[in-house]
Amino acid sequence: MEESRFAKRLQNMGGNAIRELLKVTQQPDVISFAGGNPAPDTFPAKQLGEIAQEVLAGDRNILQYGTTEGYAPLKEFIAGWVGDIGIKTSAANVLITSGSQQGIDLLGKAMLNPGDKVALEDPTYLAALQIFRTYQGAFVTVPSDADGVLLEELEEVIAREKPVLVYLVPTFQNPTGITLNLERRKKLAEMVARYSVVTIEDDPYGRLRYSGEALPAIKSFDQNGEVVYLGSFSKLISPGLRVGFAIATPEILQKMVIGKQSTDVHTSNLSQVMIYEFCKRGLLEPHLEESKAKYARKLALMTEKLSLFPDNIKWTSPEGGLFIWGELPETMDATKLFAAALEEKVAFVPGTSFYAGGGHLNTIRLNFSNASEEMIREGMHRLARVYAKFAE
Amino acid sequence: MEESRFAKRLQNMGGNAIRELLKVTQQPDVISFAGGNPAPDTFPAKQLGEIAQEVLAGDRNILQYGTTEGYAPLKEFIAGWVGDIGIKTSAANVLITSGSQQGIDLLGKAMLNPGDKVALEDPTYLAALQIFRTYQGAFVTVPSDADGVLLEELEEVIAREKPVLVYLVPTFQNPTGITLNLERRKKLAEMVARYSVVTIEDDPYGRLRYSGEALPAIKSFDQNGEVVYLGSFSKLISPGLRVGFAIATPEILQKMVIGKQSTDVHTSNLSQVMIYEFCKRGLLEPHLEESKAKYARKLALMTEKLSLFPDNIKWTSPEGGLFIWGELPETMDATKLFAAALEEKVAFVPGTSFYAGGGHLNTIRLNFSNASEEMIREGMHRLARVYAKFAE
Repeated sequence: MEESRFAKRLQNMGGNAIRELLKVTQQPDVISFAGGNPAPDTFPAKQLGEIAQEVLAGDRNILQYGTTEGYAPLKEFIAGWVGDIGIKTSAANVLITSGSQQGIDLLGKAMLNPGDKVALEDPTYLAALQIFRTYQGAFVTVPSDADGVLLEELEEVIAREKPVLVYLVPTFQNPTGITLNLERRKKLAEMVARYSVVTIEDDPYGRLRYSGEALPAIKSFDQNGEVVYLGSFSKLISPGLRVGFAIATPEILQKMVIGKQSTDVHTSNLSQVMIYEFCKRGLLEPHLEESKAKYARKLALMTEKLSLFPDNIKWTSPEGGLFIWGELPETMDATKLFAAALEEKVAFVPGTSFYAGGGHLNTIRLNFSNASEEMIREGMHRLARVYAKFAE
Repeated sequence: MEESRFAKRLQNMGGNAIRELLKVTQQPDVISFAGGNPAPDTFPAKQLGEIAQEVLAGDRNILQYGTTEGYAPLKEFIAGWVGDIGIKTSAANVLITSGSQQGIDLLGKAMLNPGDKVALEDPTYLAALQIFRTYQGAFVTVPSDADGVLLEELEEVIAREKPVLVYLVPTFQNPTGITLNLERRKKLAEMVARYSVVTIEDDPYGRLRYSGEALPAIKSFDQNGEVVYLGSFSKLISPGLRVGFAIATPEILQKMVIGKQSTDVHTSNLSQVMIYEFCKRGLLEPHLEESKAKYARKLALMTEKLSLFPDNIKWTSPEGGLFIWGELPETMDATKLFAAALEEKVAFVPGTSFYAGGGHLNTIRLNFSNASEEMIREGMHRLARVYAKFAE
């Protein structure tokens, strides 16, 4: 079939570059800092299995069709749970999604006409770029510093380009690990209210904080419902169950529900009930404490090993999340470094994919959550050796 | 927020009319023939719960991210399983979807530009209409008789309108219960090959046959990969787990995979593993035999009770599936009958929603799978009483 027979939205789109790249890095002898996977040894498999067995024995209606909006007790739980990041809401403002990425997709579906503009941090979450591309959105980008997206620049872009959506990962950003500071959160909410522009606060990592002080969500400063908050249990409990959520006004939510009705009808009931029971039984907090302790050690170890690299590389110092970001000297090409690293059986993601317009070949993303401490130690030594040769 | 701020594809779209209507019919004292739900007493909840517990205890990687294409052993199983409806394929041609409805959505996403035409049976599956509308497809419709869609009319429509997609539910169609006969299946595959038009064979009900002879899938006569087969475990094991599949050429599948990557990344791993284990352990066939015996009794009972209605109603006589379709005398308005029926605590779906262009107010769809035999008996008596009054 000729390429031209497919819809324009998918033409010449090669798929998610990272997912394709990950296939290469998944050979068992490769130490991979490339993905964004949680550590499998954090998964509460035994507890979840017992819950599954118990709830199915108790209520066969879990196997029936559910409502598109989601399992009511889980929505109720989430509405209360987000109180600790300052969000005051109710179950009516919660939509359960099949992973928080589906939230981005449903918002693109609900809001974007071809050619509509989306303002985003540069670099930003790769899959968000891909999703907005399928709705033929156009990108306008805003730079960040160590405290997150630059507000003056963002305001300029909003005023000039009139984007339909602003998309941000304000906490432990993917790919940089950077967090938007408190003052900017307040000002941002005020600004997007002033311009009345729908703003996606994508927050899959916010609860994985290993140091520093917790921050309220941008959504907590929301004035007129411009801010849509996307959350996920993927990094907290399990990505394989595919449970995330969106918090938004009933008006926006209703459009997302229509979009969801026609894509998967509803999120797996069993997944929803399992996540709910896990949380309701008080298992989430101790589980999170344990996972965070592990990830904190891994982050500390990887950070320590950064000293194996020359001083002219700029690394971010995240207080949480899953990623460290590096800027190599400008003359370096990380896509070539990637090829050399793979020969030495160590992998990362070249940063260029995270930029809406490509370029920035000298950037790299390192994931520290998935590999064991032993693998981090060994992998960082391998990578430093490859880099030393490469930089000669 | 003003309606105009949302994307055109969702503007003025009220959501799935039936799902909204179902909310009304879900009051506990209403006997509902309205939905399309399987009977909860068929769900193998205990077996599935034990499987969930066992597989999670055995492999915590089920909780990790999976591949977009789906769980490899399940794809392998499906590739073999469809052999008995004549489809020769391999796992590489199988994509696991979050319900077969997602398959329709991914095909719309991959194939349709705004204004592109979709040829479909009139009436047809309501959610398919809704999905194609979100991709701003235009409908061209083809009538059916008791043996399915009329081929001469379909060919005329294909030649004249040059649709990008043909969409059919050829076996125990929703809403009519009608099945496309063998001769037409062969001719249809030959015809869509001649016109080189991608044809969706949506088959969620095919394995629920209670009488008559099993038919090979249209896909089994596929010549050059024009036919995309969509299957589902929703009506066979559980809709709440959200597991369906698509069988297509690698070329079409690759586009569907790109679309799926950006909507839900992958279908719940646990759901996939549970369905696979249920099938692999040989539980599917005895389970299906039991379910079919129940549904056959319900269909027979509802068919028997049709004699309570006047002779001038034309009912279909399905050999399987979940639905009976009725055409009342032309002067009747089933939307008004619906309101009267609801007052007497019995519900069905007015047929007009299943027509791409509306109209056909004198049609109704009855579901016989969800209500118990006792409820079918009582409900049909109620409905016949309402109808008698209404027709006066």
